Amino acid sequence: MAEAQNRITQADIAPTIISIDAMGGDSGVKAVIEGMQKSALINPDIRYIVHGDAAEINHCLNLKPELAAITDVNPTEDVISMDDKPSAALRAGKKSSMWAAIAALKNNEAKATVSCGNTGALMAMSTIQLRKAPGVARPAIAVLWPSTNPQGYNVLLDAGADIKADAQDLLKYAIMGASYARNGLGLRQPRVGLLNVGTEEFKGHAELHDAAKLIDTVATSSDFQFVGFVEGSDISSSGVDIIVTDGFTGNIALKTGEGTARQVSDLIKAAFTRSLRTRLSALFVFASLRKVKDRIDPRKVNGGVFLGLNGTVVKSHGGADATGISAAIKLAFSLAQNDFSEKLTARVASGLAASKDVLSNIDEGST
Amino acid sequence: MAEAQNRITQADIAPTIISIDAMGGDSGVKAVIEGMQKSALINPDIRYIVHGDAAEINHCLNLKPELAAITDVNPTEDVISMDDKPSAALRAGKKSSMWAAIAALKNNEAKATVSCGNTGALMAMSTIQLRKAPGVARPAIAVLWPSTNPQGYNVLLDAGADIKADAQDLLKYAIMGASYARNGLGLRQPRVGLLNVGTEEFKGHAELHDAAKLIDTVATSSDFQFVGFVEGSDISSSGVDIIVTDGFTGNIALKTGEGTARQVSDLIKAAFTRSLRTRLSALFVFASLRKVKDRIDPRKVNGGVFLGLNGTVVKSHGGADATGISAAIKLAFSLAQNDFSEKLTARVASGLAASKDVLSNIDEGST
Repeated sequence: MAEAQNRITQADIAPTIISIDAMGGDSGVKAVIEGMQKSALINPDIRYIVHGDAAEINHCLNLKPELAAITDVNPTEDVISMDDKPSAALRAGKKSSMWAAIAALKNNEAKATVSCGNTGALMAMSTIQLRKAPGVARPAIAVLWPSTNPQGYNVLLDAGADIKADAQDLLKYAIMGASYARNGLGLRQPRVGLLNVGTEEFKGHAELHDAAKLIDTVATSSDFQFVGFVEGSDISSSGVDIIVTDGFTGNIALKTGEGTARQVSDLIKAAFTRSLRTRLSALFVFASLRKVKDRIDPRKVNGGVFLGLNGTVVKSHGGADATGISAAIKLAFSLAQNDFSEKLTARVASGLAASKDVLSNIDEGST
Repeated sequence: MAEAQNRITQADIAPTIISIDAMGGDSGVKAVIEGMQKSALINPDIRYIVHGDAAEINHCLNLKPELAAITDVNPTEDVISMDDKPSAALRAGKKSSMWAAIAALKNNEAKATVSCGNTGALMAMSTIQLRKAPGVARPAIAVLWPSTNPQGYNVLLDAGADIKADAQDLLKYAIMGASYARNGLGLRQPRVGLLNVGTEEFKGHAELHDAAKLIDTVATSSDFQFVGFVEGSDISSSGVDIIVTDGFTGNIALKTGEGTARQVSDLIKAAFTRSLRTRLSALFVFASLRKVKDRIDPRKVNGGVFLGLNGTVVKSHGGADATGISAAIKLAFSLAQNDFSEKLTARVASGLAASKDVLSNIDEGST
């Protein structure tokens, strides 16, 4: 007991090391280093190990001695590009900054990894190195979605780690999503919804009905509330915190939402630049519109989290600038400090135990 | 030949009768009658047969003698409600306004049907009465989506008629969607895209790969261009006119887009009503913002078309007001005048003939 208390105190004062892949983002190494600096200014307990082209990294760090003092540089040779297929990246990418950034997490040199690189390659490399958490067949990518909830965001998963998900996968997404919302968004009892179509009679594939039964069974013991089926229009609503779906549907929904938000923003911009008169009037409402833009700005919502692996990996948007990268680092830091990965594994195990009876019924039913 | 020419002349001068279900919409009979009047003012060739509560309908028509003069009223007893399940509506709804509105089309008393009622019930009743067009296994709902294209809208289908679609269904969606874009939007050679997820390696289920092969095979002979896979963010883009997907994914995308557009509009509204100063500045940009609202206003884009039946049925949004209902009637009228239903059937037949070789390969491959 005394020893355990001792350990907690140690952890409280120890800095948290984040492993950063400096390469592969559209905005280059400079944006990554600037993002690291932004996060370091807010979180004095942060330390970095950064992987990539040593000349480029040191060039940026030379101008930032305070950041350099808390950063280890690990020189790597190769870079995974956005066009590399995951399988090719796995075969040929062992000397890449991405591989090394994950390896540091695997070897306990860091508590979380952040990369702006190729999502498919990052997921493939993370799965190979970190391995899936016990009981998880399909890891998922959880993304934040601007919402009318007090916390400002809802969680959607799977946003595209895998194109398929059966009822058991969806159950684990619910448990993992709830654990993420507790540790990443500070929600004590998050509300989980299962994405489905609206028409009563069509209410989705048999898989979704099985998943609803399973999720309902574990909700109470897993400290979340299950609100049942939700529709596409509910993703941004205040009636739910976590939206569970398969990676195909989730990816389509995510990109449809992004596309629509961009479309509306473009229309507003066009409306205001139409004439001198509208340009002048835009000056009067600039601040108000800026607030709207901030609320739906993907840079400020940046950070897809890989759930279901033995370790916390945060995927920053490929096009993220320093502000976006800093948001992703902040998320990784907060999850690392909460020992999120360990808590998630425990939650999945207890959830599977709680759903054992329903699971065996479903298995019998499907054979 | 002389006879054929004679028929064309007849059709040109004959009025086009639209069958209207006056019941079941959220805005009541009054909005339906007002929508009919709006359309009649624009299209002098339009005639109506309207089904529903005779007392209510006549009460509204009494105030509009010019509309009454071109409208037949068919009194019906029952109303299908938004909560009725399709199967229940089929069993008990034969005396409903919805059933009668479709029957008029079936009996050649009208050239197209418009209803604001329950989508599932309308599709079930339409399928039973009109029957599927030859070669079509799964009818689809095609909706218009605000886009940056010159025509202002893209077409998405299936928006939720059926939760499943195999490769052959998706092929027919492509052919039917192209035919709709030609006759409804006036596009000579529409561009068709197949909705999929972004990551190269994951590029979708095997079904989608088969569908892509099939669609590619028939594109030229079916007078459309196949642009391959598109993502959720492309639905509103100018790189494609028709987005083909299964009804589950289509319904989620549609509602996600609607939800996001509403969310952004709400944020803008909130930004402008925050203080007296922002309220005042809103006055300066009212006209500009109004234009944006008009472009994304679902009332003005109103009208989901059922494709793959022997007859043209347009589903107006349940919450549509007179403007929205008028838009749906206008669409039905334009499709009816173009003999759309007959053209679509011919297109499906020739498309299936053109894809015969690829189809037999896929069938062999899957056995």
